Amino acid sequence: MRDFTFYAPTRILFGRGKIAELPVHISKCANKILLAYGGGSVKRTGVYDTLAALLENAGIEWVELSGIQPNPKIDSVREGVELCKKHDLKAVLALGGGSVIDCCKAIAAGVYHKGDLWDMVDKNAIKRALPVFTVLTMAATGSEMNGNAVISNMEINEKKAIKSELLKPVASVLDPTYTFTVPRFQTAAGVADIMSHILECYFSTVHCAAVQDGISEALLKVCIEYGKAAVVTPTDYTARANLMWASSLAINGLTSCGTGNAWSCHAIEHQLSAYYDITHGAGLAVVTPAWFDHILSKNTLDKFVSYGKNVWGIKGNHPFAIAKEAIAKTREFFASLGLPETLRGLGIHSSEYFHDMAQKAVKDDLANAYVPLTEEDVVAIYSACL
Amino acid sequence: MRDFTFYAPTRILFGRGKIAELPVHISKCANKILLAYGGGSVKRTGVYDTLAALLENAGIEWVELSGIQPNPKIDSVREGVELCKKHDLKAVLALGGGSVIDCCKAIAAGVYHKGDLWDMVDKNAIKRALPVFTVLTMAATGSEMNGNAVISNMEINEKKAIKSELLKPVASVLDPTYTFTVPRFQTAAGVADIMSHILECYFSTVHCAAVQDGISEALLKVCIEYGKAAVVTPTDYTARANLMWASSLAINGLTSCGTGNAWSCHAIEHQLSAYYDITHGAGLAVVTPAWFDHILSKNTLDKFVSYGKNVWGIKGNHPFAIAKEAIAKTREFFASLGLPETLRGLGIHSSEYFHDMAQKAVKDDLANAYVPLTEEDVVAIYSACL
Repeated sequence: MRDFTFYAPTRILFGRGKIAELPVHISKCANKILLAYGGGSVKRTGVYDTLAALLENAGIEWVELSGIQPNPKIDSVREGVELCKKHDLKAVLALGGGSVIDCCKAIAAGVYHKGDLWDMVDKNAIKRALPVFTVLTMAATGSEMNGNAVISNMEINEKKAIKSELLKPVASVLDPTYTFTVPRFQTAAGVADIMSHILECYFSTVHCAAVQDGISEALLKVCIEYGKAAVVTPTDYTARANLMWASSLAINGLTSCGTGNAWSCHAIEHQLSAYYDITHGAGLAVVTPAWFDHILSKNTLDKFVSYGKNVWGIKGNHPFAIAKEAIAKTREFFASLGLPETLRGLGIHSSEYFHDMAQKAVKDDLANAYVPLTEEDVVAIYSACL
Repeated sequence: MRDFTFYAPTRILFGRGKIAELPVHISKCANKILLAYGGGSVKRTGVYDTLAALLENAGIEWVELSGIQPNPKIDSVREGVELCKKHDLKAVLALGGGSVIDCCKAIAAGVYHKGDLWDMVDKNAIKRALPVFTVLTMAATGSEMNGNAVISNMEINEKKAIKSELLKPVASVLDPTYTFTVPRFQTAAGVADIMSHILECYFSTVHCAAVQDGISEALLKVCIEYGKAAVVTPTDYTARANLMWASSLAINGLTSCGTGNAWSCHAIEHQLSAYYDITHGAGLAVVTPAWFDHILSKNTLDKFVSYGKNVWGIKGNHPFAIAKEAIAKTREFFASLGLPETLRGLGIHSSEYFHDMAQKAVKDDLANAYVPLTEEDVVAIYSACL
């Protein structure tokens, strides 16, 4: 186990109706806030009205920023920062999934940034931030319990991650019923995203981090069982609840602390969504099995065997056979959720940008990945995905 | 899964030499603190000197309270509160195991308590507290990452738990090398304590909390593998590290959130250490298997089967046989660590106080335990332990 710092201060309010407890926590730091959300779904489902009534009752005023898109764009960040400055807002409340939360984190930091906001994102130049609160409506990114955010700049085909403990939400509402209306495809993509967060840490050169490995395996099994159940029966509370809690724990530091290397599949996928604006989780479902195929060797075999035995329950004595079956099961599982198996299935039919994307992907520290990856490796993985 | 709030804001500084990072966090809230520890072991091992030098370099002054005993006594709390008031100390730093930390938490709250301090403990009357920091020297109670403390009053044979989120340490140093010198018996008792924290939550009437159950099973397996390894080879870093991290996660809310009932074995054992001042974990190692025997029935069978299969790897198709083997394996495991199997092994040879202790134990909410327990049940469990 490597040395680490673990710090997950976000207060999680989990369960049916727990949103009622949120205003008291907001009130401790603000009485006028930015309320940000995406499209109209939060209005259709009623969660917007519930929240608005609670804020009103608590005497918390708000200004709205709506229309935040998947793969949130720097333009929304600029807009949010303007609103916060203009109205002297003291906190940011995200109502939505990971994209809305990520956008809000960038806004919270952007309020204090002097200079261009893309520059802040590009250099991860975060010195101070407004407090962030979230009401989660989709289980996927885990952004509700960590200090990370990913922002896109479509003008230059860039997708960049920012990271600071200042961005860790003060409190997050996790009400599984809010995810009942998430469409099957988005639910499935969320499952792939959660699993990728865990796998990126689990496949590590660090040995003997048994606590982290055990937690990772437990969470992966939850994703497999309840991810499938949530796709099949969107209103299955138990499935939605376990998936939602798994999504937060997958990437709040528990699985990465003391383990981990630079992430591979996320770096590779980020370029796909930067170039093609595809759904992040769906991209990961395509990339992950191809990455597995690419990195399986006698050096990585032991980890694949642990994965196969402890997560998929594969029996047997032939390590390579177990490893290959584990990869096959991963691929089959994503397909069984209705996710595409190839880039073509995502609408990407050409290798036109593979070299450009690979060039950018390796800059995400892929030399320090679990298995170090060169541009050629990444092109090979993209090609295998096609 | 039940609704829950999860809030674990303690910053964990984990690994060799991470103590060097502690002063910067203390400095944010205090430049004059109470430094509390137990006996001379922290001086013999050198951790006291390391810490003193770091504090001095950071310009943090301190006043010392030493001699804090296992099952920390209200007298030490009184003494600590006096020191804090007299010297206007602004934070409390515990250097030791759970007893020292628990005592420091009570001191931190006691500084703001008007009236008698035992009254504060008895009524859990905590309104405000000084910030608490810890440097952990033993893996057991998990006090380094939660808001709980247990204080004893030997004059009236009472042992009471206090609980408040105000008592959650701001930062805790977990350096596994500090536990290399923990004697075998104390290490073993710590393992039993950690496992009991998990089992008290795992045996729950709440179904379908798959995330929590999976994490619990993972942590139990870590205790079994690395608990044994740490007892056999006290300087095994991997064993000490996994055990230490498991001890914090076992009782920081992760295993109890959304599950759980009033705790059984702890209520039963607390009376034993209140009356006989025995080592808490050793008491739990005796009580837990006897409690298992007492509550095994067709109503609890499913949980025992999950425990047997997922934690102990027991195969088979006969549920009662699996359950009984799981209990036997638990008992054998504690014995293999060198822990006593009976109350006689703990120096308790008479049933003299069984009724008195049972009467007090049931007041710890045993009517709301996993299997509700009456005074007669508790006497039966004590008797089976004799």
